[in-house]
Amino acid sequence: MFGLFSKRWNPDGKHVYIPGGSSGLGLALAHILAQKGSHVSIVARNQQKLNAALKSIEAPYSMPLDSGTAAAMALEVVCQPHAGEAPDAVIACAGSAKPMFFVEMDEDDLVDGMSNGYWIQAWTGWAAAKMMAKQRKKGAKIVFVSSTLGYMSFIGWASYAPAKHASRGLADTLQSELMLYGIDVQIFFPPTMSTPGFDEENKTKPEITRRIESTDECVPAEQVARSLYKGIVNGPAHISSNLLTSLFAASTRGAVLRDNWILDALYDMIAFIAMPVWRSSVDRQVRAHRDEHQQYLTSKGFFTS
Amino acid sequence: MFGLFSKRWNPDGKHVYIPGGSSGLGLALAHILAQKGSHVSIVARNQQKLNAALKSIEAPYSMPLDSGTAAAMALEVVCQPHAGEAPDAVIACAGSAKPMFFVEMDEDDLVDGMSNGYWIQAWTGWAAAKMMAKQRKKGAKIVFVSSTLGYMSFIGWASYAPAKHASRGLADTLQSELMLYGIDVQIFFPPTMSTPGFDEENKTKPEITRRIESTDECVPAEQVARSLYKGIVNGPAHISSNLLTSLFAASTRGAVLRDNWILDALYDMIAFIAMPVWRSSVDRQVRAHRDEHQQYLTSKGFFTS
Repeated sequence: MFGLFSKRWNPDGKHVYIPGGSSGLGLALAHILAQKGSHVSIVARNQQKLNAALKSIEAPYSMPLDSGTAAAMALEVVCQPHAGEAPDAVIACAGSAKPMFFVEMDEDDLVDGMSNGYWIQAWTGWAAAKMMAKQRKKGAKIVFVSSTLGYMSFIGWASYAPAKHASRGLADTLQSELMLYGIDVQIFFPPTMSTPGFDEENKTKPEITRRIESTDECVPAEQVARSLYKGIVNGPAHISSNLLTSLFAASTRGAVLRDNWILDALYDMIAFIAMPVWRSSVDRQVRAHRDEHQQYLTSKGFFTS
Repeated sequence: MFGLFSKRWNPDGKHVYIPGGSSGLGLALAHILAQKGSHVSIVARNQQKLNAALKSIEAPYSMPLDSGTAAAMALEVVCQPHAGEAPDAVIACAGSAKPMFFVEMDEDDLVDGMSNGYWIQAWTGWAAAKMMAKQRKKGAKIVFVSSTLGYMSFIGWASYAPAKHASRGLADTLQSELMLYGIDVQIFFPPTMSTPGFDEENKTKPEITRRIESTDECVPAEQVARSLYKGIVNGPAHISSNLLTSLFAASTRGAVLRDNWILDALYDMIAFIAMPVWRSSVDRQVRAHRDEHQQYLTSKGFFTS
């Protein structure tokens, strides 16, 4: 029956591949899984970060992941010590964001947003699905990492929110399609986390975006990783780790498989009232920012006349 | 107050730019707007299609739209007869889909899916937002065209659904951000339409995808264009044109501005029951297709062992 996930996933002795596992959420998850007995492989671009992660992770590799070919090659390399067998689970944690005002973005900002928010995970998903399907690896798992910004969006996120919505579109498609091969697909929607990535995105984040987010608590990556781990073990199609994201999840659930009908109905009812209240408060803040923003753009020479 | 759109948009005498207006939905909408007194400019790649559209459209141009630079140049050209003034409305209708099995897609299939489903519209939105904001063109409009597959997805749509989800992410972001400039952003979610694009996508569509869609009625583009027109005039953030899409819209609404609280609550309640029923029927069809699919892949030499 839909909505019932009685089969718990056991990480012990499994080969888990975490692209993007050298820092932040990916690294925190790698630690948990290693503790639970998984053989964890991580791949990241940055050798320095990998070195720091080295002590606790069995198999760290420095390889690019930014194309289908690169992701397929990285996957092949991490599977070599496992006799070429596809991983039991692939958890695509790589990604980064660069919030900015839309009218100040150049072409590269938009393209990079899609590359760093979507493709960096999609390519690994593509390579992993092919490998798992070819090897008839039933019960294998692919987990994508989106963001609360995969459920909704607001000012400042025009390069990132489309990428995180795209991740959801891909995961929801594959959740249906990879049933053909007995491969499970899940997607995680983490909230604001205190990670190196968060510090990086704050460098370009517009003041108004920061102000709207100021009511969010910034959760340690380790705590968020525990929620992700729990979700991976329990198996719901969409994984949330805090109440706000669960409300967004409920109110954008659509045709996603239900996890708990009673909780879902409750969240739905709360969200029906809470969403417009949240939205109305954001809109008010954006409108109140109009004059300040006009002055800002004028000072930057944006207006020609 | 949120949820109240009392200001109707009047197309008479307005300059409306429709990239992708040479066929299908875009052309049908161009005809309606021309009849209502708009000065319609269309841009498309295909000169032949443009010639066919020529008779009824004031200003057809053949130009590429596949990068920010190209879209900005096309926008500049269509604005020349209007003294360089930004259009009153830009309605991004361009796009195409190529449904396939995920494990049979190559890198280009995935990249093209994002280009033809997302970027072809995003670039025009990017160029238009900059131009409108620079010219302080309050009351201007940008309309994106997603798909029912921007609200949900299933087997076969792994290159298209992410792009259409991304369009939603962009529109929802800009609906918030372009308030700063008094620019309205809307997004349309059309269902299956009988258009040249639909004939094209049927060439690669897997049999199982076709079977799942077989209960959809295929609506003429002219009828869908009338719904889009009505939506553009009335102003809701998300525009649907049939009941099924309205149910998906209700159940994935999230923080999107409400149009009608009573209708929304009703749709929510129907969707709460209808979505799992729909999903369960799709899953049943996918599972029933397993053996046939294994045979198909085997016949194609997909399995190495």
